[in-house]
Amino acid sequence: MNVSVKQKTEQKFFQLQDFELDSGEILQGAVLAYETFGTLNKEKDNAILICHALTGDTHAGNSEKHLGWWYGLIGEDKALDTSKYFLICANVIGGCYGSTGPSSPHPVDGKPYALRFPVVTIRDMVKAQYQLVKSFGIERLFSVIGGSMGGMQVFEWAVSYPEMVKSYIPIASNIRASALGIAWNNVMRQAIMNDPEWCEGEYYGRTFPVNGLNLARRVGMITYRSFELYEQRFGQEINVQTSPYHLSSEYEVERYLSYQGRKFVNRFDANSYLYLIKAMDLHNIANGYGSEMEALKRMTSEGLLIGISSDALFPPQEMSIVAEQLQLIGNPASYYEMESIHGHDAFLIEFDELNQVISEFLARIRIEKDNE
Amino acid sequence: MNVSVKQKTEQKFFQLQDFELDSGEILQGAVLAYETFGTLNKEKDNAILICHALTGDTHAGNSEKHLGWWYGLIGEDKALDTSKYFLICANVIGGCYGSTGPSSPHPVDGKPYALRFPVVTIRDMVKAQYQLVKSFGIERLFSVIGGSMGGMQVFEWAVSYPEMVKSYIPIASNIRASALGIAWNNVMRQAIMNDPEWCEGEYYGRTFPVNGLNLARRVGMITYRSFELYEQRFGQEINVQTSPYHLSSEYEVERYLSYQGRKFVNRFDANSYLYLIKAMDLHNIANGYGSEMEALKRMTSEGLLIGISSDALFPPQEMSIVAEQLQLIGNPASYYEMESIHGHDAFLIEFDELNQVISEFLARIRIEKDNE
Repeated sequence: MNVSVKQKTEQKFFQLQDFELDSGEILQGAVLAYETFGTLNKEKDNAILICHALTGDTHAGNSEKHLGWWYGLIGEDKALDTSKYFLICANVIGGCYGSTGPSSPHPVDGKPYALRFPVVTIRDMVKAQYQLVKSFGIERLFSVIGGSMGGMQVFEWAVSYPEMVKSYIPIASNIRASALGIAWNNVMRQAIMNDPEWCEGEYYGRTFPVNGLNLARRVGMITYRSFELYEQRFGQEINVQTSPYHLSSEYEVERYLSYQGRKFVNRFDANSYLYLIKAMDLHNIANGYGSEMEALKRMTSEGLLIGISSDALFPPQEMSIVAEQLQLIGNPASYYEMESIHGHDAFLIEFDELNQVISEFLARIRIEKDNE
Repeated sequence: MNVSVKQKTEQKFFQLQDFELDSGEILQGAVLAYETFGTLNKEKDNAILICHALTGDTHAGNSEKHLGWWYGLIGEDKALDTSKYFLICANVIGGCYGSTGPSSPHPVDGKPYALRFPVVTIRDMVKAQYQLVKSFGIERLFSVIGGSMGGMQVFEWAVSYPEMVKSYIPIASNIRASALGIAWNNVMRQAIMNDPEWCEGEYYGRTFPVNGLNLARRVGMITYRSFELYEQRFGQEINVQTSPYHLSSEYEVERYLSYQGRKFVNRFDANSYLYLIKAMDLHNIANGYGSEMEALKRMTSEGLLIGISSDALFPPQEMSIVAEQLQLIGNPASYYEMESIHGHDAFLIEFDELNQVISEFLARIRIEKDNE
């Protein structure tokens, strides 16, 4: 992994205070890397927190130098309008894009934590973001938004800090890890741990476990898309330069996966990957509240839950059922299902539809706020 | 891999003649292992060929010693009634259950072929079965049946030897490899090839690539089932003996996958796995006929195509579209969709429904035959 990719020039750093994790362990001297887009108003009531997904970073919006990963949703005339809102996007605790994670130096010996890094949870990620948000003097976020692992954080925000959230928008996510999600994470974890270069996580300064992380990424890339999309895009196309009657002959879809795998190992840390998928496995908003329903009852702010029709990893019913449960207990929540062929990744692709539905929702929240 | 599992006492062996493969290579001295259930009648018109799936063997029906993998479909009072039919099930060429494959001795030096084994196709598997069927003096099979990779063989039978097939029953399969299927095979292939014990296939007599094949099997097991089934069966259950805040804490679904992986490496050869998934990647009934439609036009016998509602690996529409195409060109084919939560593996599980629909179909074919 190329360490230089970790720091983007736009990043700022926030020092976390007394950071006790869900596990009870204390994380000493941890920092959160973050970026902001737009301007915080005088009333400090126009802030939207953006929560990134598994392999995302702080650079959600665009800068002169780089397009952001949510470039299609962020900017003037977009749903996350930088002329209206102050957007904050922090790298999660445990990540490898500037925030403290397993590749960071351990405060005692200055060597990378590796597996000495404590297991973190989605709730820990959110607790760290809470300190950051508070440091701006913000008393209530106008909204919290994110897809996939980002959506898990969004749900945790609405449960853990209901008074801090005016509205929330989880996309293609769930309120607790699914068995299938844990199963795929198991396979990706095993792919990394099977790599002899992984060395129980002690590969820093040595050979990076390229094959293991590459394989994990391939698994991810398949689960993020739909059968139909792969079919339309690749079918059974093969590289005709070679004979197909060879054990290593490569179809187009394989070249694509291999390319995605190679690209990924240059930008992500293998141990961070292990910690973040473990955090996803542990995700359950019921933790500490007795039941899902008790947790949902804590969510008093208004929610827009978005599911994706072709999402096989976080099927839309995971989101629609939660919206129904919230409505049942009288909590304001609406559900919107995006029709898309793109599968789980549609939240990073279908910008036209997302812009429309999110703009409308946020406009309604603004009117409600003005009438308060 | 325990070599003793290769031979079941009921197996017989058939010597293939002049076996030229699709690739143009000649496979010398190859044998097909097979088993039969029931009795061939005097007219030799009651034979049904059973084609096994990726990890299946010749033991489809029951014996005194072992339940067969299709125990619920085979036997008196079952759809594949051993008092009516003579059932033949051969291990595919390239396999590791008695037929010649990469773990078999090379005729020149007596050492395992390993990667010297030529790439075989689904059509090659069928061509070998054709020689075996002919050796019984059978002029026409009453039916050919199989699921998944077995269904691929069934389609190839109907295309390659239409005059040899009175009826055919492919289940949860397709007429050409899908991009998603190739993608998953890529990941499973890579899992095996990443294992340092694989040694370019030269692991015989040395350490078996246990971790790689175990990981490939886990991937398979996830794709064979449905989101809902995993959710119902495992949810987020965790082994409560350990703290969840550990990188290696294990959820129930992970224990299941790990168990399935360990079980599999004791019964299957890693190189065979590579050759068989490659055969699946290469599968396309259009090969040599110009187009899918030209191939379908060759299929004159009567087909019952069965899809599974929750099958994410071979989605039911792959089967229903083929049935529609066949009907469009006036070929007799019907489509039946099984409602099941079990995903792709439903063809090995949902015996009640399969027995009913297959019995009815075969009864109709018997009446048609009697009226000929």
